[in-house]
Amino acid sequence: MIKIILLGAGNVGYHLSKAFNKSTQIDLVQWYSRDYSSLSYNNIDTEIINDLSKIKSADIYIISISDSYVGEISKKLNVSGKLVVHTSGSLDLSIIDQKNRRGVFYPLQTLSKNKEIELAKVPMCIESENNKDLALLETISKHIGCKTYKIDYNERKILHLAAIFSNNFVNHMFTIAKEILDEKNLDFNILKPLINETVDKIHKLDPENAQTGPAVRNNNEIIVNHIKSLKKDDHKKLYELMTKLIKEKYGE
Amino acid sequence: MIKIILLGAGNVGYHLSKAFNKSTQIDLVQWYSRDYSSLSYNNIDTEIINDLSKIKSADIYIISISDSYVGEISKKLNVSGKLVVHTSGSLDLSIIDQKNRRGVFYPLQTLSKNKEIELAKVPMCIESENNKDLALLETISKHIGCKTYKIDYNERKILHLAAIFSNNFVNHMFTIAKEILDEKNLDFNILKPLINETVDKIHKLDPENAQTGPAVRNNNEIIVNHIKSLKKDDHKKLYELMTKLIKEKYGE
Repeated sequence: MIKIILLGAGNVGYHLSKAFNKSTQIDLVQWYSRDYSSLSYNNIDTEIINDLSKIKSADIYIISISDSYVGEISKKLNVSGKLVVHTSGSLDLSIIDQKNRRGVFYPLQTLSKNKEIELAKVPMCIESENNKDLALLETISKHIGCKTYKIDYNERKILHLAAIFSNNFVNHMFTIAKEILDEKNLDFNILKPLINETVDKIHKLDPENAQTGPAVRNNNEIIVNHIKSLKKDDHKKLYELMTKLIKEKYGE
Repeated sequence: MIKIILLGAGNVGYHLSKAFNKSTQIDLVQWYSRDYSSLSYNNIDTEIINDLSKIKSADIYIISISDSYVGEISKKLNVSGKLVVHTSGSLDLSIIDQKNRRGVFYPLQTLSKNKEIELAKVPMCIESENNKDLALLETISKHIGCKTYKIDYNERKILHLAAIFSNNFVNHMFTIAKEILDEKNLDFNILKPLINETVDKIHKLDPENAQTGPAVRNNNEIIVNHIKSLKKDDHKKLYELMTKLIKEKYGE
């Protein structure tokens, strides 16, 4: 059994805790959060703590908290010579206090507490200072069913940036589309086949070969009318900027 | 058999021609394009023409060409008292010459010639000037396997606008993400589980409840670094604008 202690109970911590509890090869020894109430996940056979001084011994300590506090909590962590990793897409492993062996266990996925996910659909990006620790990270990733990628800091930063465009910004596009429909009492569900196909396409074509719509067709009358009909100035700006980018990409 | 004449051989015309040819209840009598070479779809049992004066008699004429030419071609169409429809998300049916009965047959979907699609995944938005024509449009939509929606002009314009955000702009986000990865020789495939989950989520949550990432977490250090690391000024602007919109939506 691999003994893990997990620190943090945000979206990533929540899904990792569930995954670790499900695995018969992993013993989630303790789960720490400053705030007990965030450890709301029941059905868990793990000691939960909100006091770092109570931390026990384990094979690995996984820090899954806000980027700004990773360095600080790793300093406060009263263990040394242990493998301590964070789960951030943006931080180097050197942020972790050097009294420990350091690494990264970054799930390249959008995780929300209110949405279950199959872990086979989570690419796990791992990094460490030595091969033995890397092998342990790979084993843990395998035990919870993830596909593992060995990714260094520079690559991870780029992947994270690309993830912002292909998930965070995309999801907000859906949010805007729903706002536009809600305002006229039109059902967002009618757009879902289109949204499904948008993603289905990029499994068969490069996204640049899948582009359709008035911007790539250079249909300026539609574009002008759309911008006019948008209520929010920043939505107008967004429409203009996306249109400009698409037109430039495909040549005016 | 419903006799159809199709005008236009763009993405929509291409997919409609295939669907009509597959249906045993539809006879695609003629397929018109100014340019023969765009009628590249083989395996088709239909007369193809590039001369409007050769147009025959049919139950319905479907004009699937660039918005700017729909009015003009409907005037040139030497039939009267017939049902003539266009396939545009943005045009009123009044664009069609009034010597004919007028209607709309608008597939709310992203269609590319190089990507096949199941027509069950195409919501067909129909509109006409009388109930009998509407019933015919509904029958045709059913024969090719689409789900049918009776949508008036104002609703259709709004749906089209929302479709731009949820498909056209989303696809360009994927294009940017791929550009960012390509530049560092990272494989776009590693992002695909994330992209799949982005869409899977909105089948279970409203998109506004599915948002993750540095903007909604208000993690300004990551945001500043990401903007710095983008090469193109317009990508920087886009990152800033999306971040502002997300922050405003969820309260700073």
